[in-house]
This record gives sequence, C-alpha cells and structure tokens, in this order.
Amino acid sequence: MLTNKVPVLLSMISFWVLSFMFFCPSSLPAQETEQDATWIWYSGDYEIWLSNNMQARRTEREAVLPPLWRLYSPYSLVTFQKELDLPEADEVILQTEGSFMLLIDDVLVHGQPKKFSLSAGKHKIVLRVFNQEAVPSIYVKGKHLRSDSSWVATHEDKQWIDENGVPHQSGTPWVQVGTWNFNTPESKPSEFKLNTELWNAKKIEPVGSGQLVDFGKETFGYVKLHGVKGKGKIALYYGESREEALDSLRCETLDYLNFDGNQESEFTVDKSKAFRYVQVQADSGVQFDSISMLYEYLPVDYRGEFKSSDEQLNEIWDVSAYTLHLNTREFFLDGIKRDRWIWSGDAHQSYLMNYYLFFDSPSVRRTLLALRGKEPVTAHINTIMDYSLYWFVGIYDYYLYTGDEDFIKNFYPRMKSMMDFCLARRNEDGMLSPLPGDWVFIDWADGLGKTGEVSFEQMLLARSLEAMAVSAGISGDEDGKKEYNELADELRTKLFDVFWSDEKEALMHQRVEGKVLDNVTRYANMFGIFFDYFTEAQKQGVKEHVLLNDDIQKITTPYMRFYELEALCAMGEHEFVLDEVRSYWGDMLKLGATSFWEKYNPSEKGVEHLAMYGRPYGKSLCHAWGASPIYLFGKYYLGVKPTAPGYEKYEIEPHLGGLKWLEGKVPTPKGDVAVYCSEKEIKITGANGQGLLVFESKRKPSSDFGTIRKINGNRYELDIESGVTYKVSYAALK
Amino acid sequence: MLTNKVPVLLSMISFWVLSFMFFCPSSLPAQETEQDATWIWYSGDYEIWLSNNMQARRTEREAVLPPLWRLYSPYSLVTFQKELDLPEADEVILQTEGSFMLLIDDVLVHGQPKKFSLSAGKHKIVLRVFNQEAVPSIYVKGKHLRSDSSWVATHEDKQWIDENGVPHQSGTPWVQVGTWNFNTPESKPSEFKLNTELWNAKKIEPVGSGQLVDFGKETFGYVKLHGVKGKGKIALYYGESREEALDSLRCETLDYLNFDGNQESEFTVDKSKAFRYVQVQADSGVQFDSISMLYEYLPVDYRGEFKSSDEQLNEIWDVSAYTLHLNTREFFLDGIKRDRWIWSGDAHQSYLMNYYLFFDSPSVRRTLLALRGKEPVTAHINTIMDYSLYWFVGIYDYYLYTGDEDFIKNFYPRMKSMMDFCLARRNEDGMLSPLPGDWVFIDWADGLGKTGEVSFEQMLLARSLEAMAVSAGISGDEDGKKEYNELADELRTKLFDVFWSDEKEALMHQRVEGKVLDNVTRYANMFGIFFDYFTEAQKQGVKEHVLLNDDIQKITTPYMRFYELEALCAMGEHEFVLDEVRSYWGDMLKLGATSFWEKYNPSEKGVEHLAMYGRPYGKSLCHAWGASPIYLFGKYYLGVKPTAPGYEKYEIEPHLGGLKWLEGKVPTPKGDVAVYCSEKEIKITGANGQGLLVFESKRKPSSDFGTIRKINGNRYELDIESGVTYKVSYAALK
Repeated sequence: MLTNKVPVLLSMISFWVLSFMFFCPSSLPAQETEQDATWIWYSGDYEIWLSNNMQARRTEREAVLPPLWRLYSPYSLVTFQKELDLPEADEVILQTEGSFMLLIDDVLVHGQPKKFSLSAGKHKIVLRVFNQEAVPSIYVKGKHLRSDSSWVATHEDKQWIDENGVPHQSGTPWVQVGTWNFNTPESKPSEFKLNTELWNAKKIEPVGSGQLVDFGKETFGYVKLHGVKGKGKIALYYGESREEALDSLRCETLDYLNFDGNQESEFTVDKSKAFRYVQVQADSGVQFDSISMLYEYLPVDYRGEFKSSDEQLNEIWDVSAYTLHLNTREFFLDGIKRDRWIWSGDAHQSYLMNYYLFFDSPSVRRTLLALRGKEPVTAHINTIMDYSLYWFVGIYDYYLYTGDEDFIKNFYPRMKSMMDFCLARRNEDGMLSPLPGDWVFIDWADGLGKTGEVSFEQMLLARSLEAMAVSAGISGDEDGKKEYNELADELRTKLFDVFWSDEKEALMHQRVEGKVLDNVTRYANMFGIFFDYFTEAQKQGVKEHVLLNDDIQKITTPYMRFYELEALCAMGEHEFVLDEVRSYWGDMLKLGATSFWEKYNPSEKGVEHLAMYGRPYGKSLCHAWGASPIYLFGKYYLGVKPTAPGYEKYEIEPHLGGLKWLEGKVPTPKGDVAVYCSEKEIKITGANGQGLLVFESKRKPSSDFGTIRKINGNRYELDIESGVTYKVSYAALK
Repeated sequence: MLTNKVPVLLSMISFWVLSFMFFCPSSLPAQETEQDATWIWYSGDYEIWLSNNMQARRTEREAVLPPLWRLYSPYSLVTFQKELDLPEADEVILQTEGSFMLLIDDVLVHGQPKKFSLSAGKHKIVLRVFNQEAVPSIYVKGKHLRSDSSWVATHEDKQWIDENGVPHQSGTPWVQVGTWNFNTPESKPSEFKLNTELWNAKKIEPVGSGQLVDFGKETFGYVKLHGVKGKGKIALYYGESREEALDSLRCETLDYLNFDGNQESEFTVDKSKAFRYVQVQADSGVQFDSISMLYEYLPVDYRGEFKSSDEQLNEIWDVSAYTLHLNTREFFLDGIKRDRWIWSGDAHQSYLMNYYLFFDSPSVRRTLLALRGKEPVTAHINTIMDYSLYWFVGIYDYYLYTGDEDFIKNFYPRMKSMMDFCLARRNEDGMLSPLPGDWVFIDWADGLGKTGEVSFEQMLLARSLEAMAVSAGISGDEDGKKEYNELADELRTKLFDVFWSDEKEALMHQRVEGKVLDNVTRYANMFGIFFDYFTEAQKQGVKEHVLLNDDIQKITTPYMRFYELEALCAMGEHEFVLDEVRSYWGDMLKLGATSFWEKYNPSEKGVEHLAMYGRPYGKSLCHAWGASPIYLFGKYYLGVKPTAPGYEKYEIEPHLGGLKWLEGKVPTPKGDVAVYCSEKEIKITGANGQGLLVFESKRKPSSDFGTIRKINGNRYELDIESGVTYKVSYAALK
C-alpha cells in the first residue's frame, strides 16, 4: 500500500496546505468591528461559566439533567493589566464584577473606587478582581484608557513585596483577555440574557377544563400568563407535537406553577423551553385571561440567502435556517427540547452551516472554548473519542473561514494539551482504540463495530494532527509544526497500509486484536472523499462500491447524512443529492415539520415519528443537524468556499443540479458573495478577497468584465475582484 | 563525604522509619467520632471555596487584598453515589446545595424531591448536583441511608445511554467524599460562620467629639453599635495598639458606615477585623448609645495544659495559647490583622503547635487541602519554593501525630502531582535552584543569599521525598515508595557531598554557578539537627560552631526562632532555651502584649515596636508563629511525642530545664497524656497506645506500677500503659 503515500500527500497539499504556502493573511476577527470599551475577563472563562449555567438548565419533567461529562470552572481571582502612555490627563470610570484591588503605577488605591484620574504620561494600571460566584470581569472607560482586547490577564499574579518594600514579579503567565459584546457599564456579563420578543398564540382549543395553545410553529421561550387571579396550581405541559402536549403523563417537559393569591397579574415562567403546543390546566381556584410567550433568541443577521426555481427546496432552505437559528443560542445546541447540551460532533456541523448563514464567529469561538474547558484534560470532550477530534477539525475550519489567527495563538496551548491527551491514549501501534472511559460514538447505527482500531477514528486523528500542524505554524511553534506533520504523515500511511482493501476498493471498518474484520462501512470512506485522502482511482472505487452501493449498511441519522451528502456533492453527484434532499427533507415538510428533526425514517407512520430512545416523545423535532441543506446549498450549489484563510482567496463553482436557476448570497468576513446561475447566465458579485469563478460550458463563454480563461475541455475560470459584478454568458452542460 | 551516607541513613531510620517498620496502625481519624448523617462534598472542594472567600476578605483601608498566588475552584458538577443493602424499607429526607438529579437504581426521579422512599434490599442511589456559586453538596438522612464518608463522588460521571437505552459507565474516577461537622439539614456548608460571643468594652475614653474603645486585649470580631439613631457617617478606626486606633490617617483597617436614618437601632459591621482598640467618630447627625463587639472564634477544646513553678512561663504559655486560638479559624492564619492569608510555612508551625493544644485534626486537614488546591500545579504553593516543601513535611507530621491513613490515601494523587512539579524544576545537578516565578523565602534576614542552590532548600526537598515515600507506602504505590526513597537517598548524599565543610563543621549556605560560597547560616544546620541528618560528631560541631556561635548571622524572626529553639532543645539545651523564652516572650509581656507578635526586637523603643515593612503599624501584634512556646513546652519539657503514627507508640521524656516542677497535659488521638515532674517525682497518666517514659536519675528510681529498666548510665525507661497513673520516685540530675 506504499503507493498511496505520494498521491495522498499531494492531494492533501492541494486542498489543505497550498493555501497557506501561498498566502498568510494578517489576523482578521471576522465580522467584528473595532472595539470601544467593553467588559473583559480571563479568556475562555466566561464561556465556561455561561455554558455550565446553560447546560444545567436542561430538565426532564422538572428533574435537572446536567451533562455526563465534567464541567470546568472559571478562575475566581484574576489580575488585569494595561500599560499605556497618555497624551493628556484622563478621567476613568470603573465597574467590576467582584471585589477588587486597584493599583495605579504599583501604588494601592484605598477603598473600592468607581472612578479615578490619571495624569498625562506613562502608566501601569492593575486590577485584581475576586469573584467566586460569577466570572471576575471589568469595564474601564476613560477618554484614552479603555478595557478592550489589548489588556492582558493572569490567574497567577506572583507579585510579592520583599522586606524592603520592593515588588518582585516573574513567571506570571499573561494572556490576552476575552471579550464578547458587553459594551456598556450596565451590561454586566453575569446578567447576560438572550433577546426576547412577544408572540401571541395562533390557535386555542379546549382540552377538558383547560386548553391547548398552538403557537403555530416550533419555538423556544417563556410562557406568559396574563390576568392571573386567585390561588392554586396551573400545570403547563409542553409539546413539540400536538400529541406530546396533550399527553400530560408522558410529555418530556412541564411546569407546575403555584399561585398564592398575592402574585402579579402578569406571570412569566422562569425557565425557557422548546415547544409549539402548550396544554394548560388550572385548578378551579385560579384563573387567567390569556396566554402568550416570549420568543427567546440570539440576535444574529441572516446574511446567507438561497432561492431557486424549485419552491420546495426554497422552503427547505428557509426551515433549515430557522432550525439552525433556534439551535444557535448562548452556544450551538444539538437540539432545543430535550437535549440542550453542547456536543462537539453536533456543533462541528453547526459551525459549518453558520459559515453559510450567519457567519457569526463569536458563536463558534464561544462553543469551541466551552467544549475545551481548561487544564488538566482527563477525558475526551463529551467523553467521546471522535468528539475530541471534531474539535480540532472545527478549529481548522474556523481558521479557514475566518482567518482569525489571534484565536489560534491564544488557545494553541489548550489545543496542545488536548492533543497530548489524545496522543497519550494511542496503543502500541500508534492508533486510537478505546480505553476505559472512552466512548466511541461514530453514529447511531445497529451493530456498528466500536471496539479495537476503527479506521474512522484514525482518519479523524490524522486530520486533527494536520490541524495541529497548521496551528503550530500560526503560533510560531516550528518544532511542533514539524512533529505534528510527521505524526500526520505516519498515521495517514498506516491508515491505508492497514485498512485499504484493493479487493473491496474501500477502507475497511475495523481491526480487532490484529485482524482486520471483513466489514466495510460508509464512515471513513465518505470522510476520505472530502478530506481528499484518496487517489482519483480510489475515489471512484469508493463512490461506486461504497457510497452508491445499497449493500453497505445505510445511514439513518441526518447527522451522518450530512457527511454522506457532502461526499456525494464532492464527487459531482449534485442532481442525485438534490433528489435525496427533496425526499428526505421534503417529506418532513409534508408531515408538517416547522423545523427539522433529529431523525426521519420514511417507513414510520403517525406518532412513530415522535418516538426515539424508547420514549414516545423522545425525538427532538428541532435538531441542528437537520439544517444541513444550508451548508450543502451554499458550498456545493451556490458553490462558494474559501481557498485561503479568511476568504482572502475563494472559489465559486455554481452547480444547478438539475434546477433551472438558483441565486443567493454567501457571507464572508468582509462582505457577501452574491451568486446567480441559470443554464445560460452566471452573475457574481465578489466580496473582499481574490475570488475565482470556475464553471463548465458547452460553448465558449463570455463575460462583461475580466478575462475568462480556459482550463481544459469545457472547463473555464474567471478572476473575481471585490465589489464588482460579473455577468457571464455560457451554456450549461445539461 | 561518602562517610556520611551510612550514619545519615541509620539516624534517619531510627527517627523516622523504624516506627513504620514495627507498627502499621489501622486508620484513626483523630479526635472524631462515628458520623451520623452529615453534609458531604467532593473532597477538598469545600476547603478551596471557603479559603478563597476567607482570603479575599483581607482588606487594607477598604481595598481588598486577595492573595498573590492562584486560587483554585471547586467542581460545579458532582455526582454522589452510595450502594447499600437495606434491612427494611427506609424513608429518606434530602437536602442539597445546588439543583440536582436523583437516580434510584438507575431510574430518574422526576422533580426536585425533598424526600423519597426505599424498599428493603439492595439499592444504588445517585445524586448529580450542580452549583456554580458554592460547593455542590448533599445531606441525606434516613434510618439506614445517610450521607457520610462512606459515599463516593466524582466530577466525571461518564455514564451514557446507548441507542437501546442501556447505560454504560467506565473510567469514572471515584473518590471518597469530604465532610466536616455540618450534621443537620439546616447547617448548609455555604452558610458556615465561625461562632461569636458578645464582649463589652473594658474602657472608653473621649477622643475629640468621638471616643476610643478598649476591649482589654487583642481580639477578632464584629463591632456592634447599639441604639443607632439619625443620619450620617460613623467612622471606625481599628488598632491592635492604642496608637494605631488613634491614628485615623494611617491605621491599617477601618470602616466607614453610612446610615440613612432607616436603619435598625442595633448595627453590626459586616466584616470581622482584628483589634484591641477602636476609635469611633460619628457625624453630628448620627448618634448611638453604646458599643460592644462579637468575638468571633472557632470552637475548639483547649486540651493541652501547662503549669510550672515559673509564673512568667505560665503566662507565656497562656498568651501563646490565646494567640494560636485567634489564628486558628476557618484555616490556620499567619496573623489576624493585616495578613489573613494561608501561608504554608506559617501553617506548618501552627500544625505542630495545634498537636500540643487543640489536637484539632480537621483544621490541619482543611489547611493542607486549601494550600494544595487542585490540578494542574503551575507554581509553588504561595509561589514560594520552601513553602511547597513544608507542605509535604506537614503531611508527614499530620500522619505521625494522627495516624490518619485515609487522608493520605485520598490525597496521595495530589501529593504526587505536587512532587512531580517540584522534581521537574530541579537543575541538571538534581537540585532546586529558583526558576522564573519561584520565590525563595527561607526567612526575612538582611542580605540572605537566595540564588543558585541553597542547602536549606535541598534539605527540605530530601525530607519531602521521605514524606512521599512513606505516603506511597500507605497508598499501596510500591514503585513510588522505592523511587522516592532512592531520590531521597541520592539527594541527602549530594547535600553532604556538596555543602558539608569539615573545616567549618557545618553545612555551607549556598552554591552559585558551581562554586560553594564562603558563608554559613543557621538554617540548614538547625533543621539538620531535628531532621536527624547529622552524625553525633557533626551535631556537636554544628551546635558549637553554628547554633551557639554569635558570629553566625542571628535570627530575628520568631518564625525561624521556632526551629532554632527546637534544635537547641533537641541538643539538650533545655535550660538555655527557657532563658531565651523568658527574655524574648517575657519582654513582650512586659511591654503589654496580650498576644504574641510577628517580630520582636529588644533594641527597639516605644512605637518602633509597632512598625514593620516601612509602615508605622505594619507589624502584626497577633501572629501564629509567636505562639511556639506551646510546641516547645509540650514536646521538649512535658516531653511527649509520638514514635509511631497516631500515638500508637509514644515517648515521654520530661525536662525541668531548671524549673522546680512542671505539669500538664498533651492531647493524643485517644486521650491525653498527663505529666507531672519535679526534682524528686515523675507522675504520668498514659493515653491510648504504648507509652515509654524515659528519664535520668542520680539514684536508682522506683515506681508504684510497672518495671523500670535501666538503659545505660543514669538513663532509665518505664513502659506506660493506657489509662494507668504511674508515680516514679527519682532524683533529677540537676
């Protein structure tokens, strides 16, 4: 199998590495503008604190269901520091979350001042803040001195005063502070809440002495009761489906409210929930006039757009966008009803969809930081082997889409310790096989082999090592870069040596106790396509013998369908994939879905669609991974993707996939790429960065701007400059 | 210097190791009785949380002064588990600090129940508790099921449910839970407060329009104002001395109270402080009737006692006991006014004093746990190299005095990671020399060499490695035991090879860049005495050429005088040491001390005694290390010390040191040892364990019980059985 070595490396270089060789952009914090004063904290700590709170809010019939994995903790004592040279005197206001000590030019200021003055000239400002209930954080605002990401912080101050009163400090590990968007003194990070908006009920029908309230579509928020009078209990039974809300004994979430007669007439439940329907049953002693809800959401712009000649696909895109938005909250959730934890594998797909819809980089960063936690690493992320590895791949993707080098530089030490943990769990053959406490997930699939060495896990590790090598380079760790590249090379070689079968024309699934089992699954084979690990011949073999082979166990979760459809798109099966989308997602719409589900099985009927995990309403009817058409349509039909970090270079390769026309926008760090494509015309408006349109035409195409170059056969390309609109006349191949 | 190897090892064995070879007791949690239901938490986490809060309460004129070292954080999500076989059905009440999930026999109980029932038979109870503001903790009480130290806990549950609803769990790191004394459902750990007691002012005198209140002696607590009326500000200026309280511009602590006219008539300040005097100045608009205080203290028994024919020494012991008590709080403090942090070096002395006064093992454990924190170790304890090492020595002492093996077993992993950190900081010669961020303290002394390899630090490391070897043995880590013993052997050999000077008859202080400097200090030499690292000849040399040599730089802090006097006692200089105590501690009493000071310099006059660190009232007038006579009198005059862990074996070797008589009690894990000694008679009542009285007599002694054996010359011994009182007639040598 040694013949694989060269082609694999070459193909890898073409897809992943060349971009860095040609272009190394300066840091671009995507979509964010120059900061004024903002609340700052120890990087990553606020994300840990907020995610702990969010994840512990998951309930099942009032029982709290915190995650099964470890939660990390913020530092309770943080020193913030800023040195600056003031051109003039400054008056500074100061807000903190926590008790504090202020040192101006190494002199302690007595009391807990709310403001202070500085003379013109050089100064060193130090704030040491203690808070054991929320995250130590500060807001400082003068004309010149402002808390922003130029400050540094440490959890180990190490400044001591000797017997002569002389201060000494060394070995203090300073890091760049963390920020989000808390830009006023009043907007304390600990008081963060998502936005809300009042929604009225769409329909109310009686149920016994109570009522069933329908809000018209899947939603998330706080039920509000208006005009509450009297004493007694009101029960709220929530349902994503009508059936669930009506089944008070078995619905997954509920609230029992007790009123003592002294309540305000308007009452809002204290914990937000996911639902479309609510059954309300009140004791006879208590009445209310009406019911509404506060829809709770993260304010993000819908920057991505998609329209086509197929109305059903347009609706699929719209419902996908809403599904992703419902799951894009403090962090990327897997699902909004029962789930409400942060899962690295699920989040990895949300990151990718996000790049084609909101391009909200802070949400990606928050989620990556919450998942990683802090030192020491004692278990896989979410306890799942594959989920640690998706985390690395997610960081690589984040860098590719945003070009944000600061993030990599700041968190490279945490990447390194996470990778140290993974590498230390390899067996004597240098492969990952599960040790006690390691959950090998891959997918929910009957009889799926998860013991020994699974080829899919080794492939994710290889890609993670490539991500580490790139990150080491960005962070200036040249030794690390070399070492990670070597480890990645070795592992890719071993992957093919051990698992590739010339007979099956596929990667085998698993090796147990030194023997490769006679079993081919789709997982490693489909990832190998879009990781570009195969030779062209291998790709074609895999496509025919695995992807399009019905004898290979089928994938039943939208989770893995995401990657399966991506692999098929990467292999040019655009029409086939659209048909799959129409039947799979289209059928959910026909069944009345207002958001996409955790799982859809066409052979099920009626309430069978609501059940999962042996529970009648166990299935989530709003699951982030159900929203994958956003990603597929943006990347493979509008056809836009970065080819250098932060869209400094990008490609546009529209595919009609059998449609008459399609159009839309893909967001980038600086501006949107607009695409229109019919069988005769392609229109592109470029964003900042160097774009390249690639397309095929039966005849010689023409453009109103720029010069079209022929690549080969029917294949052409055209450079796309920022802000310019290009109209290309051509003839689609079919 | 190779000749040292054998004697050092032999003497070491005689003092430290033999005891373990002969006797390995079962675990004895000193002074604590069988637990009923009690609040439980993840071991060590409550101590971290409480110590964070306590240390962040240090103030300087209303500025908060948190520690310069890192604070650790408790886990916010903890799983508690207990399996048991119930002889009958049980009704159980449940209290938690935090929201929770209850699983009975792997089945989720809905809601947040306050009680539950169990049928007779086998059960598994699991509680997962989330709390991000205080420490997740539980109290469970049924007839049979009770939360106590038999429960286990983890911060990584790792239980996941597969697609068939089957739970899987592996690799979960269970530990024994932590407890203290929260034994009722109402006594929530997060609401812990020290006890208080109302004290009235002893004397009040006018100061301008205000008053100076004298509480008669050093104290700690909350000032109370009675009958407060009107609106305006009241300023409280605290002083350990009259001078400090009167100096409103420079006193170290103060409170500015603002009354809006709507206050209750009785007002208590919210933060306790250390003081004897308070100057009160009220605005004209606000009045109060009287002032008192709530004395705040940890309730502990004064089990140790000491009386002698010298009234001055008796008073010194009494004031020492009060000084130690004031500093024995949530944790062992260094000093109660300005300081209020937990310092490992200071605490080490408090542990030792505590064994001769309160024998309060929980206070030692709390302090050791707070100091150590959690993983990862990124700096020395308190950032001080010697203070990491005292921590190990403190654990060894704790084991020797209490015999508590459970503590060692539970925290051995944290000992190991702390030692890994220390060992990783050795230089190429295997010695500790400071790296960036390492503070080498040793002592406050002018011009003290702290660079390169300091012999004192290597000696502490050697003793720490011995402590690790003993702990490894207890914890069943035989490889670790072997390795630590080898490392200790090597280092002791190297210590003498490099630093022992036959010419100076002393250990040299320091080697810098490969050259031993021509400098002898007392530190390594006095520790070498009571660590028993010297041959008999070396000891005599060190005594003459270092300890009793006025040309060697003198020690000026009570901190290091503790060890100096101990070394002199160990060398038989009992009379000399009592004279030192009379002049040093006796003179403080003559100057009006009601507690012992941080430092005393006989050459200073008047207010000079109050100043330190360049601040007029910078000196602490109540400092734990000032209380060392408690330890010296108990160990070297009453002469009681354990020779096997937990006092399973102990020695009593009373020394009059020139006194006519002395008597007292020394506490042990099970009962007190009572000692009376005059020139003609020794009376001993033994505690649980095998005691051995050792004494010298000019004539053949006699006993009313047991059989006196002659050792050699004038030296005799008598076995002391538990609970029996022995009267020995003898004739003291002088």
